[in-house]
Amino acid sequence: MRFVKKARYVKKIVAQARKKGKIIGFVPTMGYLHEGHLSLVRIARRKAQFTVVSLFVNPTQFGPQEDLQSYPRDLKRDKILLKKEGVDLVFYPERTEIYPEGYSTYVEVQGLSTILCGVSRPGHFRGVTTVVLKLFNIVQPDIVVFGRKDFQQAVIIKRMVEDLDLNIKIVTGKIVREKDGLAMSSRNTYLSEKERENATVLYQSLVWAKKAYSGGVRDPHWVIDKMRDMIENRGGKVDYVEAVDQKTLKPVKHLYKGTLIVLAVYFGKTRLIDNIVL
Amino acid sequence: MRFVKKARYVKKIVAQARKKGKIIGFVPTMGYLHEGHLSLVRIARRKAQFTVVSLFVNPTQFGPQEDLQSYPRDLKRDKILLKKEGVDLVFYPERTEIYPEGYSTYVEVQGLSTILCGVSRPGHFRGVTTVVLKLFNIVQPDIVVFGRKDFQQAVIIKRMVEDLDLNIKIVTGKIVREKDGLAMSSRNTYLSEKERENATVLYQSLVWAKKAYSGGVRDPHWVIDKMRDMIENRGGKVDYVEAVDQKTLKPVKHLYKGTLIVLAVYFGKTRLIDNIVL
Repeated sequence: MRFVKKARYVKKIVAQARKKGKIIGFVPTMGYLHEGHLSLVRIARRKAQFTVVSLFVNPTQFGPQEDLQSYPRDLKRDKILLKKEGVDLVFYPERTEIYPEGYSTYVEVQGLSTILCGVSRPGHFRGVTTVVLKLFNIVQPDIVVFGRKDFQQAVIIKRMVEDLDLNIKIVTGKIVREKDGLAMSSRNTYLSEKERENATVLYQSLVWAKKAYSGGVRDPHWVIDKMRDMIENRGGKVDYVEAVDQKTLKPVKHLYKGTLIVLAVYFGKTRLIDNIVL
Repeated sequence: MRFVKKARYVKKIVAQARKKGKIIGFVPTMGYLHEGHLSLVRIARRKAQFTVVSLFVNPTQFGPQEDLQSYPRDLKRDKILLKKEGVDLVFYPERTEIYPEGYSTYVEVQGLSTILCGVSRPGHFRGVTTVVLKLFNIVQPDIVVFGRKDFQQAVIIKRMVEDLDLNIKIVTGKIVREKDGLAMSSRNTYLSEKERENATVLYQSLVWAKKAYSGGVRDPHWVIDKMRDMIENRGGKVDYVEAVDQKTLKPVKHLYKGTLIVLAVYFGKTRLIDNIVL
């Protein structure tokens, strides 16, 4: 496994692999890896012959009041985990490698970026699309794997790839959960013991919604209101709970097979997201 | 010469040329070609082994009050001219090929896009960088040639290429002028006989500024005021006349070798731009 900090080395190493006819797979991450990330790496390893993983806590996707400084990091552990997975190349750039002085270019997917998480995190997705496009240009992958926990992110990136005519296939990996159902997230480490326990209500409420749908319920408002109650009863502060179309992310009028139930909820200062497909 | 409307064919044809080891040169244009464009094509032909020219009047770089509808077009003549120049591939997409329904992704270079022409044409450069990035992704050129008449555009695109880690070399070609000094522009066709005659003052004022600098003048304000007077005396309505740094496009405090004098002036409804390097 190669472990490099400079974009120009990534370009060189990947170009060599490509010359040998290898398909390039890529998993961009912010590090502090958990089983969710590793499941994406395994997908990339299955679909490609040369796998690149990036570790970069991207400052442009954090708001001024958000957790950029406290975001957990453990480069040493990440390195060990990725080596075990058989990753070929790890890119862990410094901030100035990605955003040198005078950096001024930003990419934005309109509409999709200003709903759901985009409401309480203005500028977040602009930061995501900008860094992802840069990483795509550096790595030049054939296939990129994103997790379905960040569902909105995956939809936005697919839109960007299509709009900008990039020759990249976006693949998504399913949500990996703790035994009690909580979706894995680097941010789970922020939770107190009590918050961690209460946070299990998120998945419980999503499973409940899916059961309600299976039982014949079609009114999204009824389901959403009930979910809000469940979450608030366990001390969660709801940012949003919505029933949306998987592609447009617009609220649905009636629940149907494939409707996405998405939520973002604070436990204390920690903001968690999760979703389920009906 | 191949002449295609679809991005996927461009990708295929260029990929074949690249497989043969050819360097790909590209000149993006809005068509209605004049000697200025053709001089850029000749640069591309000299520096590359496979030359692509695009003809696309890009709607996203026109403001709602601007001349998108009336912008001159002559595809037949453009085709003949490009064939004569030995161009390998001409891409002339429909609007929906570049911006299909649901298109939502925009690229912006901050700071540089909101000064000079960006003041009176808000959103213009965002449209330019968006379409240029798309065209870059479709054509995947090694070298791209832009004209120096649109100096700000070239600076912005160089910034974008650097910021987004694109593997593209940007080359600029010098301004081509009519015999009386007026910079060639597709928009010159809008001018009445009288306006066309008066518009020669633009280059005259730039040459005058250069002479003033050679004669020892270092105060930009004195030069700019004088140029404004010259232009207004011939019926030009000044949008801006500025003395700026070539790289940052920021106003200079004292004139120095390499200072860029830039201007945008209306004659009637026609907005013309020009510049000179001291």
